[in-house]
Amino acid sequence: MNFNYPDGRKFQRSQKPAKLSTSQSKKILFGDRGMHLEDEINESNKYYRGHDIAVIYKKPTPVQIVKVDYPKRSRAVIKEAYFRQASTTDYNGVYNGYYIDFEAKETTQKSSFPLKNFHQHQIDHLRACEKQNGICFVIIKYVALKRYFIMPATKLFKYWDGQKHDGPKSIQLSEIVNDSYEITPDYNPTLPYIDIINKLIESRKE
Amino acid sequence: MNFNYPDGRKFQRSQKPAKLSTSQSKKILFGDRGMHLEDEINESNKYYRGHDIAVIYKKPTPVQIVKVDYPKRSRAVIKEAYFRQASTTDYNGVYNGYYIDFEAKETTQKSSFPLKNFHQHQIDHLRACEKQNGICFVIIKYVALKRYFIMPATKLFKYWDGQKHDGPKSIQLSEIVNDSYEITPDYNPTLPYIDIINKLIESRKE
Repeated sequence: MNFNYPDGRKFQRSQKPAKLSTSQSKKILFGDRGMHLEDEINESNKYYRGHDIAVIYKKPTPVQIVKVDYPKRSRAVIKEAYFRQASTTDYNGVYNGYYIDFEAKETTQKSSFPLKNFHQHQIDHLRACEKQNGICFVIIKYVALKRYFIMPATKLFKYWDGQKHDGPKSIQLSEIVNDSYEITPDYNPTLPYIDIINKLIESRKE
Repeated sequence: MNFNYPDGRKFQRSQKPAKLSTSQSKKILFGDRGMHLEDEINESNKYYRGHDIAVIYKKPTPVQIVKVDYPKRSRAVIKEAYFRQASTTDYNGVYNGYYIDFEAKETTQKSSFPLKNFHQHQIDHLRACEKQNGICFVIIKYVALKRYFIMPATKLFKYWDGQKHDGPKSIQLSEIVNDSYEITPDYNPTLPYIDIINKLIESRKE
């Protein structure tokens, strides 16, 4: 099947890496084993949940259900539904008493990260959660460079709001490097982003 | 349209009360204006969000999308999808830096609240979030009595786990009264449950 979510995101089945022999596995560049950012985050969240470290989930895609069939001997089938506009970001949960909320975006570009990757409702939601003292950020993946960054929401707002005053419509890699924490991809979990959340919590205390 | 969610919950459009004259409106019993608990909570959440008090949402129903049509001049239509088992509770969000997580159930009974209203995955999720120091609870509505209670998750676990040791399969109203905080229905918001969350936070500090 091949379809796009209304925000243009392509529907992709998780691409599971093929099993490898031990000698092959030593050559693996941890992280980005051909997976999309969404799968890498979901895999990490599964690890965090399984080890009682954090409880963070991707929110289901909101749909407006119009028609459902109830065949006699099988499960209910939704026959007509429409994608609804989400009101929130994609990910949230709890870590050590803190409310965690983030959006994740990937780009194939090598420096420019277009701000139109984000949508107004995601910015509004991050702002509202930031106001409530949640830990809010975005995870940005440069696919071509295999680099991952966590940019605090407050930094993102600076660029987002800058557009209103004729500011640039994209953020450059150098700016992201300056305003973000870089995640070092690893194994178990694939993306140890909780390590960065600890830094966000520390910097908040100062 | 008339269908049930896989957990048996009926799909209901929000029942909006008819407009009333002033003399009639004075007789209104605030809260339970013929609405289901889900609508009362959603209305209250909307109020809390609109007044920058808390950012709490109901999670979308998870569906597994199999087929989507893209008609030329109209929006995408999901033609085949299935209900997925949720992994979490229905509601979560942030209030004053705290992670809030809860499930909401209503009963038409006058005392007995059957524990099978809850599902194992909801209990597991509440337990995991409680472990992470989230503020976790259930909202229980006795529809016939027009009474609403917030029971902390830890109290619910006591009854849930009791079943394994031949404990009762239901909680009685008197037990709920003893182990919960009662919400006084009101107007703006309909269900001022944040007032109870403040009490949960206070009791946690002791």
